[in-house]
This record gives sequence, structure tokens and C-alpha cells, in this order.
Amino acid sequence: MTSEIFPHGVQQALDLVGIFVFALSGGLLAVRKNMDIFGICVLAEATALGGGVLRDLVIGATPVAAFANLGYFVTPLVAGLVVFFLHPEVERINLAVQTLDAAGLGLFCVTGTIKAHDYGLGSVSSVACGMLTAAGGGVIRDLLAMEPPSLLRWDREIYAVPALVGSAVVAVLIATDHLDPLNASLAALSAFVIRLLALRYGWRAPRAWHRNGSRTSEE
Amino acid sequence: MTSEIFPHGVQQALDLVGIFVFALSGGLLAVRKNMDIFGICVLAEATALGGGVLRDLVIGATPVAAFANLGYFVTPLVAGLVVFFLHPEVERINLAVQTLDAAGLGLFCVTGTIKAHDYGLGSVSSVACGMLTAAGGGVIRDLLAMEPPSLLRWDREIYAVPALVGSAVVAVLIATDHLDPLNASLAALSAFVIRLLALRYGWRAPRAWHRNGSRTSEE
Amino acid sequence: MTSEIFPHGVQQALDLVGIFVFALSGGLLAVRKNMDIFGICVLAEATALGGGVLRDLVIGATPVAAFANLGYFVTPLVAGLVVFFLHPEVERINLAVQTLDAAGLGLFCVTGTIKAHDYGLGSVSSVACGMLTAAGGGVIRDLLAMEPPSLLRWDREIYAVPALVGSAVVAVLIATDHLDPLNASLAALSAFVIRLLALRYGWRAPRAWHRNGSRTSEE
Repeated sequence: MTSEIFPHGVQQALDLVGIFVFALSGGLLAVRKNMDIFGICVLAEATALGGGVLRDLVIGATPVAAFANLGYFVTPLVAGLVVFFLHPEVERINLAVQTLDAAGLGLFCVTGTIKAHDYGLGSVSSVACGMLTAAGGGVIRDLLAMEPPSLLRWDREIYAVPALVGSAVVAVLIATDHLDPLNASLAALSAFVIRLLALRYGWRAPRAWHRNGSRTSEE
Repeated sequence: MTSEIFPHGVQQALDLVGIFVFALSGGLLAVRKNMDIFGICVLAEATALGGGVLRDLVIGATPVAAFANLGYFVTPLVAGLVVFFLHPEVERINLAVQTLDAAGLGLFCVTGTIKAHDYGLGSVSSVACGMLTAAGGGVIRDLLAMEPPSLLRWDREIYAVPALVGSAVVAVLIATDHLDPLNASLAALSAFVIRLLALRYGWRAPRAWHRNGSRTSEE
Repeated sequence: MTSEIFPHGVQQALDLVGIFVFALSGGLLAVRKNMDIFGICVLAEATALGGGVLRDLVIGATPVAAFANLGYFVTPLVAGLVVFFLHPEVERINLAVQTLDAAGLGLFCVTGTIKAHDYGLGSVSSVACGMLTAAGGGVIRDLLAMEPPSLLRWDREIYAVPALVGSAVVAVLIATDHLDPLNASLAALSAFVIRLLALRYGWRAPRAWHRNGSRTSEE
């Protein structure tokens, strides 16, 4: 029972890159919120591992992978230290960070969906778990920093849709017995590309139409 | 091992009604917070399923029911879409929504208590799980929307007390071996009626007395 | 498989003292936030049991201990009632509360680390679980009260470091096969003393250096 779609070493390396970049986004928010070195590391850990922890709790894969794998745990600490010492430089390469974050999004929605299916969940629930894996850490990050969750804000580029597409493609691949490393990579790539396009062209999702002309406050 | 107190079809139908109404309350808050269509659906899901997910995690019933049952997952999405397209109409029938929400409260505190007992928890802990099932989703809803949890606010009508009564009645029924569909329905009904009375007559719970005359701010 | 380092009765008594004091801190925050009697009890429960619940969920120890042990559950309710009726007196003995809270911190980081190791986690992950046990409840308390988590604030005395030291000492004791009641007590004592010193001398952790002279807002 494995959620690995690539040879073990490749999968591990990809996971760690994704975790590292997610952790950077948590650390940077902690710096902006004026937290100390421990706050930076806690937010880096929570952002990087939160989505996978939620997925593992929901499907009953305990002890959760994030606590059973030393590399998963140490990587966010390294990212936290990088942010602590080099945050102006990290902010400056924001485009690279956002691009890698989109890659992490693509990777984690795919592996999350596969792992949920391995644990016996149906197609739709597996897709939900894939989205939870990819987006859950960011929600925990924002809550800990007392920010309105970026995922839920209408004025941010869509994040849930790329995860939905990547997860749904994987679910279809599993259902039609076409899941292999190449196809899984294409699913991750589709989520990655959609997220990059959303960032590039400012794609946002529609809000409910306030028909009385009394729009709610533009928070 | 089942937390079903009614024939399977009846229980399923009641569950879905309760989930639908809880999801409406999440979706409406998302609209008020100016979230987009995805934020509305996420908040609908979290509100409707959050309490049951917390209960299942605590008692170790994994994969959690909300992810193992397609209907549980799809219903909040439908509610989210209803809110997205029809939220002024949904707001207008607020009294009906609040009444159905009270019915969901009654149902879920009963089924939550029974399920916790089925998983080996003692009476007091089962009551706590019943309350968690009924009220947990609303707390998650408020946290995601960055609102002070309605459950904890002194200026809202009591919500925990009806859940406590319904859960406690069930625990007594189980302990005295009198649990049957009729009695379970009466327990749910008691929670439902108390909640409706609280809404009707503005019942609130007492706050701690600030004896120095220096009341804390009326937030 | 046990996380008890002392004879059962002693361990139980220590646990309940720690839970009681953690619950006081939750109840006091609820009073400051003007919550009603139920809000006070909910915050007391969440603060006292939250860290242990998170640990048990992560390591897969379900049903979680907090819901399987009546004493664990009832103690925070008692603390909540004490705060409700006597909060000015409790506030007045704040020094004693903070001292006992530091003792709870020491105790829970030690027992949390041992329990995580009992469930098969490695040294580093066990240390993380120990810190989660000691500090998790406070984070949940602050989130429910819509306060920036005290743990993450640069302007609060360090809380994570004492927990880290206590947990790390235990991990070393386990790895070198030197864990016994005396050594475990010394580990708890080290965390306790460091926390007291931090409170006494206002020890804080460094923040990231904003090199451009443009400090972020001093929130």
C-alpha cells in the first residue's frame, strides 16, 4: 500500500522539495507577522506538513507520515532557518517561490488522491483528500497567523481549482486503471500549469451576486 | 456497530437533511464574508461535516464517515450552490433555516452520542462527543471565516445546552438499556424544542460576575 | 504500552494537577473575552486537553485518552466553575497559576514524548509530539478566543524552548536506555526551571532581522 507514483528515491526527493517550498511560504508569513524564530519554524512546519497530516488523520493512516519520517520533519526547520536569515532574498525571488509552490500543489494533490484511494476511499472522497493535502497546510498557516484563509478569499488567484483538476484527473486514471508514473506526472503538470496561468492572468472565481445592489463590504 | 437509531433509509435521509441545513448556514456566512464560489463550498462542507469528522477522529472511526459516504460529501456542495445562486431567498426564509438547524442539532447530538458509545466510550465522554458532533462544525465554520465562535459568545442564544440535554438523555437511555427509536427521537426532540425556545425567548447563559465594577469590554 | 513514568496513582494525580492549571488559563482568557459559563467551560476543556488530543490523534492512540478517562474530562469543568465564581481571586494568585502552568508544561512535554515513543515514533518525532502535548492546548485556546497564539508571539516569554529541552532530554534518556522515574522527573524539572527563569527574566526569542530598516509593524 503506497502512495508513491515514482521510484522511491525520486518520490522522496519531490516530496521534500514540495515540503521545503510550502515551508518557505509559512516562514515568510511568520516574518511579515513579526514572529520570532520559533514562530517562524512552527509556521513553516504547520504549512508544509499540515495538509498531509489532515489527510492522514481523515483516512486513518497513523502515525501520520509527517511524524514517521525524519526528513519530512527536518526539512521545514531548514526552510524556517533559511527564512530567518535570508528572508529579504527569499522575498526577492518570490516568482520562483510561487512557481515552486505551484509545483508542490500539483505534486501533493496527486499523491494525496492516490494515498486516499489506497486507504479504501471512493473516487469523490479521494479527490477531496487530494485537495485537502494540497491546500490544507495553507489554511492552517493562515489561521495560526490570524489571517483570513487565502484559499477562501475572492481577491486571490484560484488555488482550489488547479488542485481539483489534478485530483480529478488522478481519480479518473485510477478508475480506468491507467495510473502510471507518466500519467500521474501529467496530472500533476496540469494542476501546476493551471495554477501558473491563474497567477499570470489573475484568474479569480465568481462571488455570489448581491441582487439588491447592496454589495457586502469589499473586505 | 452502528450509530443508526432508525431504519437505514430513514436515518440516511435525516442525516442528509441535517447536513444540508448545516451547510446552508456555512454557505450564508461565506456569502456575508464576500467569499467566492469555492469559499462558499468549502465553508458549507466544513460546517456540515466538521462536527462528525471531529467525533470520528476522537473515537478513532477512520476513514471518517464524512469521507466514506458519497452522499455526505455531495450534499454540502449542493447546499453551497443553492446559496451561491439563491442566497437572498435563503436569507429570507431564515426562520425556516434556523428551525431546521435546530432539528439538525437534535439529530446529531443523539447520533453522535450513540456512535461514541458504540466505540467504547463511557457515558460522560459519549455526551461530550454528542455535543462535539452537534456543535463542532459551527465552531470550524466561524474560525475559517475569522469570526468569534458563535457557540462561545454570551450574546447568542444558548446552543450547547440543548445539545447537552439531548446527549445526556441518550446517555441515560443507554445506561438504563432503554434506547430504542422512539426514545431516541424524544431525546432529539427535547434538544430541538429547547433550542427553539432559546431562540424564541432569547435565552442566554450567565457570564462571570465582575465584582470590581470594572466590566470587561462588551465585545 | 504506557506513557506513565511514575506509579499509576502518582502519575494520575500529577496529570490532573497539570490539566487543572491549564484549564484555569483557558477559563481566565474566556472571562477576559466576556464569554458565558459555557464558553468558559469549553475553553477550559480545550486548553487542558487539546495538546494531549492532538498528540493522540497524530500517533493514532484512539479513542484519545482525554475522552477515555473520566477524570481528565471532569477536571477542566471543575476549573471552569472555579474561574466562573472566583476569577478575581484566581487572577490575584496569577504568580501561583503561572508557576503551576510551568510545572504542567514540564510534566506534559515529558509524558508526551514517552507516549509518542511507545507508539513507535522516532526520537525527533517524539520530541515534536512532546512539544505538541505541552503547547498545543494553548494554541487551540488562543484560536478559539481569536487571539494571536501566545506561543508564536515574539513579545511573550519563550514557551517552546523549555518544552523542547524537556522533550529532548527524555528522547536522549530513552535512546541511551536511562529512562527511569528519577531521570524523567529531572527532565520535567529542567523544562519547569527554564520556563520560570524565562518568566522571571523576560527571556524572548530573536526575530528575523529586517535589514532594509523597514521594520514591519510592531503588532
